[in-house]
Amino acid sequence: MPETIDASRKIVIECVEPELDGGRYAVKREVGDTVEVFADIFKEGHDAIAAAIRYRAEDEAEWREAPMRFFDNDRWTGSFTVDRNCRWHFTVIAWTDWFGTWQSELRKKYDAGQNVFLELYEGAQLVAVAAAHARGGDAARLNAYLAEILGDERGEVRHLHEEAEFETVATILESGAGDRTLADRVAAALDAELLALMAANPIRTDLTGYDRHLPVQVDRVAARYAAWYELFPRSMSDDAARHGTFRDVIARLPYVRDMGFDVLYFPPIHPIGKQFRKGKNNTLTPGDDDPGSPYAIGGEAGGHRDVHPELGTMQDFRALVDAAQEHGLEIAIDFAIQVSPDHPYVEDHPGWFYVRPDGTIKYAENPPKKYQDIYPLNFYGDDWEGQWREWRDVILHWVAQGVRIFRVDNPHTKPVQFWEWMIREVQREYPDVIFLSEAFTRPKMMKALAKAGFTQSYTYFTWRNFKRELEEYFTELTQTPMKEYFRGNLFPNTPDILPEFLQRGGRPAFMIRAILATTLSSVYGIYSGFELCENRALPGKEEYLDSEKYEVKAWDWDRPGNIRPLITRLNQVRRQNPALHEYDNLRFYPADGEDVLFYGKMTEDRTSMVFVAVNLDPFRAHETVLHFPLGEMGIGWGDPWEVEELLTGERHFWHGADQYVRLEPDAPGRIYRVRAWRSSETGFDYFMEPTLV
Amino acid sequence: MPETIDASRKIVIECVEPELDGGRYAVKREVGDTVEVFADIFKEGHDAIAAAIRYRAEDEAEWREAPMRFFDNDRWTGSFTVDRNCRWHFTVIAWTDWFGTWQSELRKKYDAGQNVFLELYEGAQLVAVAAAHARGGDAARLNAYLAEILGDERGEVRHLHEEAEFETVATILESGAGDRTLADRVAAALDAELLALMAANPIRTDLTGYDRHLPVQVDRVAARYAAWYELFPRSMSDDAARHGTFRDVIARLPYVRDMGFDVLYFPPIHPIGKQFRKGKNNTLTPGDDDPGSPYAIGGEAGGHRDVHPELGTMQDFRALVDAAQEHGLEIAIDFAIQVSPDHPYVEDHPGWFYVRPDGTIKYAENPPKKYQDIYPLNFYGDDWEGQWREWRDVILHWVAQGVRIFRVDNPHTKPVQFWEWMIREVQREYPDVIFLSEAFTRPKMMKALAKAGFTQSYTYFTWRNFKRELEEYFTELTQTPMKEYFRGNLFPNTPDILPEFLQRGGRPAFMIRAILATTLSSVYGIYSGFELCENRALPGKEEYLDSEKYEVKAWDWDRPGNIRPLITRLNQVRRQNPALHEYDNLRFYPADGEDVLFYGKMTEDRTSMVFVAVNLDPFRAHETVLHFPLGEMGIGWGDPWEVEELLTGERHFWHGADQYVRLEPDAPGRIYRVRAWRSSETGFDYFMEPTLV
Repeated sequence: MPETIDASRKIVIECVEPELDGGRYAVKREVGDTVEVFADIFKEGHDAIAAAIRYRAEDEAEWREAPMRFFDNDRWTGSFTVDRNCRWHFTVIAWTDWFGTWQSELRKKYDAGQNVFLELYEGAQLVAVAAAHARGGDAARLNAYLAEILGDERGEVRHLHEEAEFETVATILESGAGDRTLADRVAAALDAELLALMAANPIRTDLTGYDRHLPVQVDRVAARYAAWYELFPRSMSDDAARHGTFRDVIARLPYVRDMGFDVLYFPPIHPIGKQFRKGKNNTLTPGDDDPGSPYAIGGEAGGHRDVHPELGTMQDFRALVDAAQEHGLEIAIDFAIQVSPDHPYVEDHPGWFYVRPDGTIKYAENPPKKYQDIYPLNFYGDDWEGQWREWRDVILHWVAQGVRIFRVDNPHTKPVQFWEWMIREVQREYPDVIFLSEAFTRPKMMKALAKAGFTQSYTYFTWRNFKRELEEYFTELTQTPMKEYFRGNLFPNTPDILPEFLQRGGRPAFMIRAILATTLSSVYGIYSGFELCENRALPGKEEYLDSEKYEVKAWDWDRPGNIRPLITRLNQVRRQNPALHEYDNLRFYPADGEDVLFYGKMTEDRTSMVFVAVNLDPFRAHETVLHFPLGEMGIGWGDPWEVEELLTGERHFWHGADQYVRLEPDAPGRIYRVRAWRSSETGFDYFMEPTLV
Repeated sequence: MPETIDASRKIVIECVEPELDGGRYAVKREVGDTVEVFADIFKEGHDAIAAAIRYRAEDEAEWREAPMRFFDNDRWTGSFTVDRNCRWHFTVIAWTDWFGTWQSELRKKYDAGQNVFLELYEGAQLVAVAAAHARGGDAARLNAYLAEILGDERGEVRHLHEEAEFETVATILESGAGDRTLADRVAAALDAELLALMAANPIRTDLTGYDRHLPVQVDRVAARYAAWYELFPRSMSDDAARHGTFRDVIARLPYVRDMGFDVLYFPPIHPIGKQFRKGKNNTLTPGDDDPGSPYAIGGEAGGHRDVHPELGTMQDFRALVDAAQEHGLEIAIDFAIQVSPDHPYVEDHPGWFYVRPDGTIKYAENPPKKYQDIYPLNFYGDDWEGQWREWRDVILHWVAQGVRIFRVDNPHTKPVQFWEWMIREVQREYPDVIFLSEAFTRPKMMKALAKAGFTQSYTYFTWRNFKRELEEYFTELTQTPMKEYFRGNLFPNTPDILPEFLQRGGRPAFMIRAILATTLSSVYGIYSGFELCENRALPGKEEYLDSEKYEVKAWDWDRPGNIRPLITRLNQVRRQNPALHEYDNLRFYPADGEDVLFYGKMTEDRTSMVFVAVNLDPFRAHETVLHFPLGEMGIGWGDPWEVEELLTGERHFWHGADQYVRLEPDAPGRIYRVRAWRSSETGFDYFMEPTLV
C-alpha cells in the first residue's frame, strides 16, 4: 500500500527576510519603500538555480514577480516596491535553471574538444519546450534559434519530442547541412540573447515555493515621519477661568504650525463623568467647578462617540479638523477604553463590565488603591463580541469625522488579540488610519502590541538620558528585528510624565531632549509646555504640579526662557534633510568620553547626510573629539569635506575623521549637514573616457 | 452579518525554545536528557498567570504536563525528561491563575483594613468551581476550605452559583457565625495549602496554547557519544596480495577494541562494477587484478543489498556483526547512492537514471571531467517513488542484518527532501538507526541536511587547524542554534582527505589532531592508518598516495612511531570523564598567545570538569599561561584546587586562575581533570545547622 511522498520542496528555501515570527505578524513599511528580500536558496548537486519574489497587494488576485539574484553563500536577494497604502504579501519561489546549467556545461565540453552532439540535441529540446510556451515575439525568436542550432538544410526543425526523429536529426547535425558548421550551431546555442530569452520564458519543472506567504503592512509615510504636538483643548482660552473650546484651538493653530508640527493631538474630548470625579492634583475632593480628568470618559452628555459640551459641538470639532488641515496639520485624538460610572454603557451594557456578587459593578483597583471613577471593561464577558465591535465602531465613527490618527491609552491593559483584530478591521477599510500605542510597560508587551498591529509606539526614550543607555536602546530599536515592526514615537514629556531629567536639568535639559527627540527618530512629539520649559513637579514624583489633567490652565506662550525658536529650527532641519525622514538609518559613532552622544543618519544614496553631537550634561560644558565614519560617508581619508552646522549656521571645511567640538549647556547640540567635496578634473566624462570627446 | 472573531489566544505565548525554523524541523536530544523549555508568556493587565509544557512521545495519545515557572522579564521555563528513543512533541500552554491573583489581592486589601466581604465570596466561588472538578481527595479538602471560608454555624456551605444565596451568605459572614471570625475566614482563604490545592486543580477558563507543536528527535546516546574507527575490510588480510574478508576483520576486532573504539565503520561492502573500473591511484587504466573502488557499486554479484563475493557471504557478514558486538563494537556501513554501469538497477530500472536522446544512460560528469564508472540517479524521473522506496528498503535490508549505523556518502548530491522522507520512514520503525552525513560542502547545505534528519554530520574540523578558526567554528557548533540539530562527528582524516596539516606536520600533527578530535566533540572518528601516522600523499593534493580506495593494502600495525598508546589513552579519558560525553558544553578560555588552544567541558553539576590545552604548532614548543574560569568551576579565588593531568598522570595542587604550561611537539597536549578541594569544617551539616546535632 504505497503511501504518498511529498516531493513539493525540490529546492530548499529558508531564512527568508523580512519575516516576523515565522510570518505570524506583518513587517511594516511605508508607501514608496523598496522591500529588500533575502533568502537562502539551494538544492543538491551542481545545477544552476533561479529565484524570484512573488508579491501582491492584498486586493490583487494575481502575484507579480520580481527577480532575485545570487548574493553570496547560497543567499539570494531581490526587491519590490510597495506603492499603495495597504497590506501586501510576498513569498519566494525558485526553480532549476536547466538552460543556464546546460549552456555552462556545453561551453566547458566544447572548449575541451569533446563531442557535443548529444548536448546540442538536449539543449534544443529545452529551447523547443520554451518556444511552445513563450508569448508573442519570444516564440518566434526562440524558434529561430532552434533552427540555427538544429535546423536541416532548409532551416526546418524536426519534432524533438518524437523519438523516431533522433536518427534523422543526428544525420543532419553530422552532415553539416545547410552550410552550418558545428561551431555555428554551438555559437548559436551559447548566445547571450538566447540565455535571456530562455530566462524570460523559464521551464519551471521543479518550481518550489517557500512554505509561507509573508505579510507586509504598508502604511502612509506619516506613520514613519511626523512631528506631534499635544495640547489640552480646554486650556486654550488663555484664561484659566474660562473652559477652552474647539474654536479656541482653531485660534491656536498658527502657533503650532509655525513651530513646524505635523500632527496636533488631544487627550480625550468626550463628556467627563461626575461620580468620584478627581479634583486638582488628582485629589479625591473636587470643588464644584473642577472639570475632572478627561480620561474619566462618559457622562450625561454621552460617551466615546460624543464631545464634551464645554468644548463645543461635533460641528465645531469638524470645523477644527478642517481648519487644522488648512494649516497643514492633522488632528489626532485619544482612544482610551476607560469608562466612568456615568457612561451610557454602564446602563446599556452591564454585561461588558465585571459584576460582583452583590450586583455592583467592579471599579478599577490596584490593591489597596481604589480608582472608583473608572470601571474596567471585561473583554471576555457576556456579549464580548458586541463589545469588541462597539470599540471598532467608535473608531469608525471618528474616522467619519475626519480623524485618521488615534493615540491609544494604556493598550497593555486590554487583550493583545483584541487590538490585533480591531486594528486590522479598521485598516482593511481605512488603511491610512494610524494607531499610536501608549504602552509604557514591560518590553515584551510593548513589542507584542507593535507586532499585533500598532503603527507606532511610545518608547523608553522618556527615561533614557545617558550615553550608553541611549546607544543601547536605540541600537535595539533601529538595528535588531524590532526595526521591522516597532516605530518608536519619542516623547520627552507627556501629561503623565515630567521626567526627573527635565525637572532637575532645567532649560538646558529641555534643549538636550528636544535635539535628541527630533533627530534620533523620524517621528516624535512633545506635550505643550515643553517648549516653555515648564517643569514644576509634584514633590518626589515624575508628575506635573497642577496638572492640566485635573484643571483648566492658561499659558503664557511667550514666557521668558522658552525654546520655541529651537523647536522651530529643529522641525525645519528635519523637513530639509531627507536623512531625518528615515527611521532605521540611525548609527552611533564614537565621541571621546561619556558626556557627548554622537550619531548620524544618511539616505542610502548619501545625498543627505546628517550628524548630531549632543552634550548630555545639562550642567556644564564638555569638549570632545568626534570620530566621523569617513568610509561610510564615501569620503577619502585625504579629501576635504564641507560641513554646515544647522543650528548656528556655521560652515566648515574639514579634513580627516576626527573633529573637535565644545558644547555649552545653553547650546548643547550640533547638527552637521555634510557634503562630500570632490569635484575635480576626474569627475568629467572625458577624463575617464577620452575617446568620447 | 457579524463575522466570527478569533479569541483563542487570550494569552501571548511566543519565542518558545527549543524551536527550529518555526517548528518545521525537530531539535535533537538523546535518551535520558532533560529538555529545558523557555517561552515568553504574558497577558494584559496585572493578573497572575500559570503555564505548563505539554509533551508526549509520538506513540502516546495523551499529552503529559510539566509545570513552568516564571524566570524573568515575562520569560518562563520548565523541563521534561525524554526517556525513550523516538520522536517527541511538546508545546506550551498558559492560563490565568485566577485564584493566585485573588489571594494576592485579598491579602493586600485585608492588610490595608478594607472590607473584604465581597472578596471572600468571590474567592469561595473559585474554590467551589475547583472542588466540583477536582479528583479524589482534593475535592474533599477543597470543600473543607470552602466551609472554613464561607460556612454557616453548622459548617455547611451554600450553593454559591445561585444568586439568591448571596443575601444568606452575606448574613452568615457578617454575623460571625459558628465562632468563625473574619480573621479566621481570611486566614483559611490565604492558606498556602489551599493555593497548592487550587494550583493542582486549576480553573483554566482562558487556556491558551502555543500555535505550534514542536518536534524533538530523541536518539540513543551513541548519536552523541561514540568513537568511530574506519577500515577497508579488503585490506585486513595483512597481505596485499590477498583480498581481505569479513573473517579477517573479525580477527582485527581486538585491535580496534583495545584502542577503545565503539563503532567500526566500513566503506561500501557491495559488489564492485567492472565497466570503466579505476586502477591504482584513481587511474583510468586498471590492471586485471585491480579491485576497483568500492564506491562503484553494483556488478554481476548484485547491488546495494549484496556483499562483494571476495569479502565473503552474507552469513560471514552477520557473523562479523555478532563478533563485533561481543567485542563491544557496533558495525557501521556506508550508504552510497552510487551506481556502476554493471549494477542490476541499470537493466531493471532504466527510468531511475538520466536517459539521453540516443538511448544511452548518462554517466556522472563535472565538465570537462567524466566519471564513466558512475551513473547518477534521477530522483525525479519516471517511477521516482519506486526508486525512493527502494533506497529506504535497502536501508531496512541492512537493518535486518543487524546494522543500525549508516554513514551516508555525499548526501548533498541528492535531494534534501528525499533524506527527510527516508530517514523519518526508517526511524519511525527503527528509532535506533543513526545516519552520519558525509556532506563536505557549503555550510547551508550541511545545516539543511542535519535539520532534515541526519543524526550526525562530518564537519570542517578536518581543515580547521589554528586557534581563531577553531574557536570560531566550535563556538558556532556548540553555542548557536546549530547545537540543537547538528552533531559534528570529527574526522581528522578520511579515505578521501589527508589534510595538509598531517602531511606537513608529521607525528606531532597527528597527536595534536587526535587530542582535538577526542575532546572538542563527544563524537569523533579516525580512518585507519591515522594511528600509524600514515601521511604519504599524492603530490600537491590532500589525497593519500596508493589509496586503499583503489587497491588492497597490508599494514604494519606496530609500525614505529605509531600513536596507538595515545589514541588508547584518549579513549580511556573520554570514557572516564562524563564531561566529555556531552556535546554542547564546550567552552573556550583564554591562553596567552596564538599557539595554545585552551578549552574545557563540565557536567552541569560540576562533578566532572575537564580542561584541555593543546599546542597547535607541530614544529616547536610553546609556553603560555592558561586562565582557568574559577567562577564557572565553583572555586573561590583563594581556594586551592586539585588537578590530575590525564596524559602524563602528573598531579598538581593549584591556587588561582592563571597557570603556566609548556607544551613540546612530542607531548603537545594536556588534559586536566579538576576537582575542587574545599572540605573543611564548614562542610559538615552541624556547622551550618547546629540544632540538628
